[in-house]
Amino acid sequence: MSTKGVVSYSAAPNPAALLQKERENPSVDPVKMNYFLEGSKERSELIRSIVQQMERDPVLATNASYYHMTKDQERELTALKIGRLASYVETDNLDDFQRRLSIIGLFDPQVGTRLGINLGLFLSCIRGNGTAEQLQYWAFHKETVYIKGIYGCFGMTEMAHGSNVMGLETTATFDKENDEFIINTPHIGATKWWIGGAAHSSTHCTVYARLIVDGEDYGVKTFVVPLRDADHNLMPGVTVGDIGPKMGRDGIDNGWIQFSDVRIPRFFMLQKFCKVSRDGDVTLPPLEQLAYSALLGGRVMMVLDSYRMSARFVTVALRYAVGRRQFKPSDGSEESLETQLIDYPLHQRRLLPYLAQSYVISAAALKLETTIENTLNDLDAAVETDDLDGIMKSIDDMKSLFIDSSSLKATCTWLTAELIDQCRQTCGGHGYSSYSGFGKAYNDWVVQCTWEGDNTVLCISIGKPLVKHVMAVINDGKVVKGSSSFLTDVKDYLNDKPVITSVSDLSDLRKVLRAIEVLLMRLCYQASTVVKVNKGNFDYVGGEMLVIGKLKAHHYMLKEFIERVESIEDKSLVPHLLNLGRLYGASHVLDKFSGDFLAYSVLTTNVVSEMSGYFIPDMCKAIRPHCIMLSDSFQQSDMLINSSIGNYDGNIYENYFNTVKTNNPPSNMKAPYSAKFEALLNRASKEIRDRGEKSEEAAEILSK
Amino acid sequence: MSTKGVVSYSAAPNPAALLQKERENPSVDPVKMNYFLEGSKERSELIRSIVQQMERDPVLATNASYYHMTKDQERELTALKIGRLASYVETDNLDDFQRRLSIIGLFDPQVGTRLGINLGLFLSCIRGNGTAEQLQYWAFHKETVYIKGIYGCFGMTEMAHGSNVMGLETTATFDKENDEFIINTPHIGATKWWIGGAAHSSTHCTVYARLIVDGEDYGVKTFVVPLRDADHNLMPGVTVGDIGPKMGRDGIDNGWIQFSDVRIPRFFMLQKFCKVSRDGDVTLPPLEQLAYSALLGGRVMMVLDSYRMSARFVTVALRYAVGRRQFKPSDGSEESLETQLIDYPLHQRRLLPYLAQSYVISAAALKLETTIENTLNDLDAAVETDDLDGIMKSIDDMKSLFIDSSSLKATCTWLTAELIDQCRQTCGGHGYSSYSGFGKAYNDWVVQCTWEGDNTVLCISIGKPLVKHVMAVINDGKVVKGSSSFLTDVKDYLNDKPVITSVSDLSDLRKVLRAIEVLLMRLCYQASTVVKVNKGNFDYVGGEMLVIGKLKAHHYMLKEFIERVESIEDKSLVPHLLNLGRLYGASHVLDKFSGDFLAYSVLTTNVVSEMSGYFIPDMCKAIRPHCIMLSDSFQQSDMLINSSIGNYDGNIYENYFNTVKTNNPPSNMKAPYSAKFEALLNRASKEIRDRGEKSEEAAEILSK
Repeated sequence: MSTKGVVSYSAAPNPAALLQKERENPSVDPVKMNYFLEGSKERSELIRSIVQQMERDPVLATNASYYHMTKDQERELTALKIGRLASYVETDNLDDFQRRLSIIGLFDPQVGTRLGINLGLFLSCIRGNGTAEQLQYWAFHKETVYIKGIYGCFGMTEMAHGSNVMGLETTATFDKENDEFIINTPHIGATKWWIGGAAHSSTHCTVYARLIVDGEDYGVKTFVVPLRDADHNLMPGVTVGDIGPKMGRDGIDNGWIQFSDVRIPRFFMLQKFCKVSRDGDVTLPPLEQLAYSALLGGRVMMVLDSYRMSARFVTVALRYAVGRRQFKPSDGSEESLETQLIDYPLHQRRLLPYLAQSYVISAAALKLETTIENTLNDLDAAVETDDLDGIMKSIDDMKSLFIDSSSLKATCTWLTAELIDQCRQTCGGHGYSSYSGFGKAYNDWVVQCTWEGDNTVLCISIGKPLVKHVMAVINDGKVVKGSSSFLTDVKDYLNDKPVITSVSDLSDLRKVLRAIEVLLMRLCYQASTVVKVNKGNFDYVGGEMLVIGKLKAHHYMLKEFIERVESIEDKSLVPHLLNLGRLYGASHVLDKFSGDFLAYSVLTTNVVSEMSGYFIPDMCKAIRPHCIMLSDSFQQSDMLINSSIGNYDGNIYENYFNTVKTNNPPSNMKAPYSAKFEALLNRASKEIRDRGEKSEEAAEILSK
Repeated sequence: MSTKGVVSYSAAPNPAALLQKERENPSVDPVKMNYFLEGSKERSELIRSIVQQMERDPVLATNASYYHMTKDQERELTALKIGRLASYVETDNLDDFQRRLSIIGLFDPQVGTRLGINLGLFLSCIRGNGTAEQLQYWAFHKETVYIKGIYGCFGMTEMAHGSNVMGLETTATFDKENDEFIINTPHIGATKWWIGGAAHSSTHCTVYARLIVDGEDYGVKTFVVPLRDADHNLMPGVTVGDIGPKMGRDGIDNGWIQFSDVRIPRFFMLQKFCKVSRDGDVTLPPLEQLAYSALLGGRVMMVLDSYRMSARFVTVALRYAVGRRQFKPSDGSEESLETQLIDYPLHQRRLLPYLAQSYVISAAALKLETTIENTLNDLDAAVETDDLDGIMKSIDDMKSLFIDSSSLKATCTWLTAELIDQCRQTCGGHGYSSYSGFGKAYNDWVVQCTWEGDNTVLCISIGKPLVKHVMAVINDGKVVKGSSSFLTDVKDYLNDKPVITSVSDLSDLRKVLRAIEVLLMRLCYQASTVVKVNKGNFDYVGGEMLVIGKLKAHHYMLKEFIERVESIEDKSLVPHLLNLGRLYGASHVLDKFSGDFLAYSVLTTNVVSEMSGYFIPDMCKAIRPHCIMLSDSFQQSDMLINSSIGNYDGNIYENYFNTVKTNNPPSNMKAPYSAKFEALLNRASKEIRDRGEKSEEAAEILSK
């Protein structure tokens, strides 16, 4: 046997050269593409400036040592970083600081969250439920927005109640005599649980508790409750504990809180919508849902996070796939080098849909961000001027925003979890090293699928109004508004006529969109018939609702993506973007849900076979030559990505090896416990250690 | 608004009572069911005895503190546990110790692996590649099997080569003059990487290196190379380092090794198949594949691990689903309590297929275990007696075993990763607590999808022979043997006739099996036509091969499950088992691959719709009343499960809260870094900290 047919071992691999080659004669300008991804030149440049500041910051910047920290070290460093950010919050304008937090959420999510609970959830709750004066007082007068004086946490979930907010059991009983509320935890199940920042940082908490006045239960309202005084000592009646280690984000001091008849002044109740007068008269809000807007902002942020995190890890996996060679061509060619991973059609199919995903999510995130901003401003203006029509319109907008943000939050966070996991797997063993970044990122990420609305519960809860829309269209000729307006045509599509009958239609993204719409109509109609049979109980269509919830998000994303591409100024980017959109639609939607598209006759079996056999591979092939430039377009620096196999220079092996040696010096030749282990291997024989008691000699004596 | 319609908050939740209720009047005897799951009464009882020993062992037993350990603590404790196991290995018989390791792999996988590398991979490599005398010497004479004297590691993968073993670049050059081999690492890419036990524990390594004699490269062979002397000091020329933190299993000291012209005697080469004489004459093995049997045992073990780990976490999720209530019925009933999670049809659909999965994998694992034992024994006997016919038959058996073990390893480890992840999500926020066990288990688990044969590469590599079988059947009328024998009928099924046309057929597991077989035939045929067009290059059918690889495993599992159920003595278990098999087939196979089953016309669209709409929900409903008994049947004790929300008593909230308080005493009211954080909140105003330099007063002076 000769060396022919096996790998040459004379030359070391040179992955950096392979990566650089991808950047020669580019047809994509990554700077311009980044304007598209971030929404504008201005914002792209703002982000670059913010990144540079943080990259050079001695406290905020991360590197490989980040993957060595224990829980206690993470807790302390996270607090330290918040202190460092406090100096930025005093000078940034609000919008810039929001960007800064969003970027931090990418490379050190626990800092983003631990601070976001205070500046986001705590203040959002006050903004959403308190009067303008209350917001002014707690946020500005007390300097909370500057991370000063007060540090807030968000006391919604309890040990036995998460998703069912209406069922929370902490009580706030009005004590008319003293003009106070008495906050109480009636039993273990009502212990406030998972409260980020409660264990060690927070001074105040916005507590969700049942308002009880004169023995009557008015449902769950919100109250500001001080937990610690200015010396950071716990208030009387407040018991707080650390809930301990988590799957990820150990830098956040999640805690539990029990209130034992803790008294707060009446004016600590947040009373934009619901008021209790001095005499105990209760004014209730026009619509209960208005009180839950606190979570909306977070959901929108999570869609943006999904874009950035997806971009980060598909970049790592693509750089690795270009630099890594594996197996020689199986077609018997004389090629002496092994094939680059990225040149395997299957590898392209595994990775490139995730590249497309990052692009498509970005478009949805940008749109959602402007929508929430406008909707909340309109609502605030209407409430302030007592404009009832305005309030009603805002309620409609809020409902639509609730559907869109919920379905997108669920679908995008799931897609991103899947992306991190799958991208890790494409990096083989090296993906399992902490230094590649996947492990910690996954652990930190997946809680996004659960918190602030469990994804499954969210999908179901948005499926319900869609099914009801369809029922109303059929029964009452309702005209549906907002992002679900396509449901108005439902009657025309309740047949088994396929929407896409030729694979060539898949290039037309509007047709793909139509296919999703028609499947949604048919699914909603099918679900409505089952609900009818079950007398209005939706529990039997949970499976359908889950699919409806996901497809609704894909529809929104693809639609926004198409519209952004159509309105783009730099037309040179369009062909690339269209291919990404096509790959996304075909792989992430039509192929993934092919069973449904076929079962509801939206696609033909021919289309599904040819899509999988030709269309998707062809799209991958078209994107392949540009994949590095398309991921360079995310403009994520090495510090942000923090992956020793995913650096910009592509020098995978040297970078990785240097990281390993720097952080684990090989001069430490023995483990601290080596003596014990040596003693184990060099121990005496079992007979000696048994003191010879089982020997034949002993047997003879002991048997006599 | 009154309390009507909301949750009563007077009484604390009582999940323990709910769980106990499930165990009243059981129709499943969990002890007898365990005999089925473990294969026999004897084995079931053996395992119970082993578990009891370890549960009471002060070093081996785990509890919640396990979730608090840092990497360094895990490293040390893992070594300590290996020392403790050394006393068992001296007295257990081989089979019992194998069981013990398998159980350890469930509740402390890093111990199982760190020891398994020595007793499993290192010795398997010697068994597979060395002569009987070499095995006798290294394993027994040097006492390695007793964890004494020698501690081995397995030096296969390199930094730039994992899956492509034939392409490894470490060299073993024969030095005729000195009758030695010179082991060398030619460049960074050939650095041995990921070698478990190398960093701190191992004294010896079975090194995979290219045999070079007289300038000729004979491909990759195996050599025993000492790394450390009896004082545990590194040998000259051997450089070893720690590769640092990983996504999971930090208790294993994975390392990297570089050899700089390290000399070993010629007789350290493992020479069952390949020999180098004193004069440098090389004898090559009859079949190269025979040399790679070292990984087979591990793959088989991983299927068994998949069963146990699946059982562990579906048990946790089911107990939680029974004890947890969430939302009141939406049908307007007067029920005052919230609904138990398990009573939602969607929740059943999310969990019960995983219960079924655990049962089905168990059957496959048992079968595979006996097959490998017989095959390796037959091979050893044939080699020892120079029985050429026997060797050729063994080679056939090995090929079949390779296909079965590879497809099962890939599919079962993926299914288990998915199960842990999905079960965690069904436990909501509490699933994210380390104390629930999901996080660490997932992190420890997922490497199983990558190591000892990357799952995707394995699926592809077994798809290839199946496609070739189909080509040979069609072209040459070949008769296929072994577990793929159904492919022999391929010609009769190359049409678009559906196999299952009525949803009632789904109850007949033999028909489900036939459906899988027909889809496999059609997929293989379709792939073969594409390969033909591409001149034998399989790269273009990677996607199809992946599906083929997965379906082959499902076929094997379901077939073994059916056969075990048919041969069961206690017929009272059969109805339950059949329902589990039906749910598994419908949900994990037909529904999950419905796009393929429809595109290849194996199922009709009606069947797919009705399966999803009725059949799967009905199966779930049938299994629901027995789900706790069916998971109690795994007989996993609280120590094994180590989840504070998954204990046998079902007292979720009390157990969880006690765990939290014990491990994080609330009397520690302040964090160690609290003073810094207090100083941050109580800092002086920005103006003061800016020394007044930006004041109007300063402006006036400085502007003059």
